[in-house]
Amino acid sequence: MQLSPSLTALIEALRCLPGIGPKSAQRIAFHLLERDRDGGTQLGGCLTKAMQVIGHCESCRTFSESAQCDICQSVKRQDSRLLCIVESPTDVLAIEQTGQYQGLYFVLMGHLSPIDGIGPKEIGLDLLEQKLSQGNIDEVILATNPTVEGEATAHFIGELCHKYQVEASRIAHGMPVGGELDLVDGMTLMHAFSGRRSLGS
Amino acid sequence: MQLSPSLTALIEALRCLPGIGPKSAQRIAFHLLERDRDGGTQLGGCLTKAMQVIGHCESCRTFSESAQCDICQSVKRQDSRLLCIVESPTDVLAIEQTGQYQGLYFVLMGHLSPIDGIGPKEIGLDLLEQKLSQGNIDEVILATNPTVEGEATAHFIGELCHKYQVEASRIAHGMPVGGELDLVDGMTLMHAFSGRRSLGS
Repeated sequence: MQLSPSLTALIEALRCLPGIGPKSAQRIAFHLLERDRDGGTQLGGCLTKAMQVIGHCESCRTFSESAQCDICQSVKRQDSRLLCIVESPTDVLAIEQTGQYQGLYFVLMGHLSPIDGIGPKEIGLDLLEQKLSQGNIDEVILATNPTVEGEATAHFIGELCHKYQVEASRIAHGMPVGGELDLVDGMTLMHAFSGRRSLGS
Repeated sequence: MQLSPSLTALIEALRCLPGIGPKSAQRIAFHLLERDRDGGTQLGGCLTKAMQVIGHCESCRTFSESAQCDICQSVKRQDSRLLCIVESPTDVLAIEQTGQYQGLYFVLMGHLSPIDGIGPKEIGLDLLEQKLSQGNIDEVILATNPTVEGEATAHFIGELCHKYQVEASRIAHGMPVGGELDLVDGMTLMHAFSGRRSLGS
């Protein structure tokens, strides 16, 4: 038995979602058709619109519908001389949720990965270099992920900062707050020890 | 920090998918924007189209783009006097994949569930009654799921068949092929024993 062509096309298209295989795609398609047609129609419209209108901020490279994102346009921040470098827009979101950081961001949209053909240009380091050369930045905070690729990317950008005599710092690695010593991996524990801070006097 | 309006709308809309919470919706939206815009655009189009054009077959109630589905239109089948009753279009698919059944179907699109306000009319039993009264059906095979609601629905339809003097049969319950006795639940095992068949001579 052949499913109707639109249904087959929908099931096929649903497989672009991360972690959705043929069986899940079929289940989702039937669920939407049986129980939530309004939701499905709305999702269709939102997807089409979002893919069209969402571009990248020309200043920090995060997702934005306008030429510059809200943070780069913010009057409170645009004179900030702090630049936080992260791998993805979700990282910006996570940092913003702490409410503690008031500087600007630069979003790499990935990390260096020569094996996948992702070099400095692909993660926008030419744009970053231009920013650094203008002398408007005092300190770069490297907040890439603590993975091998993230560390390599941080190291590479650190060198770039050195070239333009801009101070670069790496976010601290150590025990997560509320964590338990015996559940933490050795690498983290090692970082927690080597990065220990004096309690002062 | 506020996400851009289209992105917020997309994340909200993605939550209509079964099993997708706010965190997964965000992850999917960012995945599509970062890595698969073409896929996202195509999915948007397919969703919009499918929700518009896919209706129900006027004869068997399964999903169909035309007035009647392929199976009901099939020349080989339309004179069949066998009617298999299932709960959902995916069940039709599962049965068709065996390639053994050559009769017609009737899809309830659910099961009787008075507590949720789903009575005989909601699962199309008025249409089924009309079919039965026309005298074109010799046997009704009740292939609803072996759950409490499925059994209740099968029982209800059985009575209906009795009223119109149409033979009704229930699919067999027992050991799944390739299953192991000690892994099967007691209810199934009980059915397997009570439904045992003589090896004949």
